[in-house]
Amino acid sequence: MELFFSRDIAGGICRLDQDESGHCVKVLRHRSGDEISVIDGCGTLYRCRITSDSPKGVEAAVIAQEQDWGTHPYRLHMAVCPTKNNDRYEWFAEKACEMGFDELSPVIGDHSERRVLKTARVEKILVSAAKQSLKAAVPTVNEPVSVKEFIRSHDIPGQLRLIAYCFEDGNVPRRNIKEVLNAFEGTEIIVMIGPEGDFSREEAELALKSGFIPVSLGESRLRTETAALAAVAAAYFRYM
Amino acid sequence: MELFFSRDIAGGICRLDQDESGHCVKVLRHRSGDEISVIDGCGTLYRCRITSDSPKGVEAAVIAQEQDWGTHPYRLHMAVCPTKNNDRYEWFAEKACEMGFDELSPVIGDHSERRVLKTARVEKILVSAAKQSLKAAVPTVNEPVSVKEFIRSHDIPGQLRLIAYCFEDGNVPRRNIKEVLNAFEGTEIIVMIGPEGDFSREEAELALKSGFIPVSLGESRLRTETAALAAVAAAYFRYM
Repeated sequence: MELFFSRDIAGGICRLDQDESGHCVKVLRHRSGDEISVIDGCGTLYRCRITSDSPKGVEAAVIAQEQDWGTHPYRLHMAVCPTKNNDRYEWFAEKACEMGFDELSPVIGDHSERRVLKTARVEKILVSAAKQSLKAAVPTVNEPVSVKEFIRSHDIPGQLRLIAYCFEDGNVPRRNIKEVLNAFEGTEIIVMIGPEGDFSREEAELALKSGFIPVSLGESRLRTETAALAAVAAAYFRYM
Repeated sequence: MELFFSRDIAGGICRLDQDESGHCVKVLRHRSGDEISVIDGCGTLYRCRITSDSPKGVEAAVIAQEQDWGTHPYRLHMAVCPTKNNDRYEWFAEKACEMGFDELSPVIGDHSERRVLKTARVEKILVSAAKQSLKAAVPTVNEPVSVKEFIRSHDIPGQLRLIAYCFEDGNVPRRNIKEVLNAFEGTEIIVMIGPEGDFSREEAELALKSGFIPVSLGESRLRTETAALAAVAAAYFRYM
C-alpha cells in the first residue's frame, strides 16, 4: 500500500508538498482522477481523488477518512540522549516508529558527548517509517533540552515515568521494566534513556525526587540506541 | 571493560590473532606482565597475563576463567531471510547479539530478492557486539540454506519452532508471539522470519506440516530486520 503525507488537509481538499507531488506524478505517474491514500501525521488516513496533477503541487478531494489508523493502545514518549554516531539515533527513531511510539525528546545529559541534534532529519525519517509501517500518526520530535530541564518539565501525575540508568544506587533499587509495565494500569508512559556515559548521579537523583522510577532493561549491557528500542519493544509487547 | 577475542586457548595458553594482537599492543599499548580479559566465543571469559607482547601474535598465560559469562537463560536460533539492503541485516545481527541470541541461519525464501550473504562479515560484527555487550559467547552463523531445507532439517522435538508470516491463512490462525512464548516451558526456541516479499504459501504450509507454529508479532507492519529483532526482544523479555 502506497501512502502520501500531507500537513495541508482542510475543507475537503488535500494538498501535497513539492516532494510528495513529484513522487506522486513523476515517479508513480498518477493523474487527475486517480485515487490516492494520504496520512496527515496526526492519526487520520484520507482516501482522496486527484483533481490537479501538477508535479509541483498535487491537489486532491477527500472522499473518505479513517481516524486512529494504524494506532497502538498506549502513548509512549521516549526521551533519549543523542548518540555519538547520528546514524544510530536515526536508526532507533525508524525502528521505534515501526513498532509504535508517539513522541521523541532528544535530551542532553551531563555526560553527553553529542550536545546537538538536527531534528529535521529525524522528522523526515519518522515520516518515511510511518508510511512504511502503515501508521497515520507520525511521532513528534521536540527540540533538545537538558536532562534536568526535561525532568523538571515532566512532573506529570498519572503518567508512568521511567528512567533507565546502569549504575546501582544502594538506596533505590532498579526495578525490572517488564514488571513495572505489567503492574501499570494506565497507558501514558515516559522512558528516559541516557547517553553512552550514562546519566550522572545528580540527574538520577533529580529524576527519583521528581517521581521517576528507576528501571533495569535486563542483564544485557545495551548500547544507548538498543536500550531505547528495547524499552519501546517492552511497551509494545506489554500492550500486545 | 576491554575484551579480546581468541579461538586459540588451550593448555593454559591464550594466543591472539594478528588483528587482536595489533589492537592489544599497538593501540592499547599492553606489555608483557599486563593482565587482559579474553572471550573464547563459546561462553568462557579468561583472565590472562601477557607473556609475549609481539604485535603479530600476543601470547598470554591463563590465570582464571569463568564459564557462561554474560549468558542468557534461553537458547534462541534465528532463521532470517537476508534483506535487500545488507546493512539492515548486519544491524539486526548486532542488536540481536546485544540483547542475546545464539545462532543465526540466513535462509533463502521463494520470494527472497537477495539470495547470497557473506557470513564472514556478519561473524565479525557479532564478535564486536559480543565484546561490546560483555558476553563471552558469540552467536554462530550458519551458511545460507533455502527456507524449505531449513524446515526439513529442523524437525526437532522439544524445541519451540515459530514462523512469522504476514498473511492470514484461514485454516491455521496465527498466534500472538507473547502468548506462545509465555506458554512454553522449555528454553530452546527457533524463530523463522521471511524476506520483504514474505514467505510463499508453499513454505508456510511445509513449516506448519513440520510442526512450526505460525505467530504474529503484533499489529504493526515491521520490516524484516525489525520483525527479527522484535522476536529476539520478545524472547529476551519472556525470560527476563
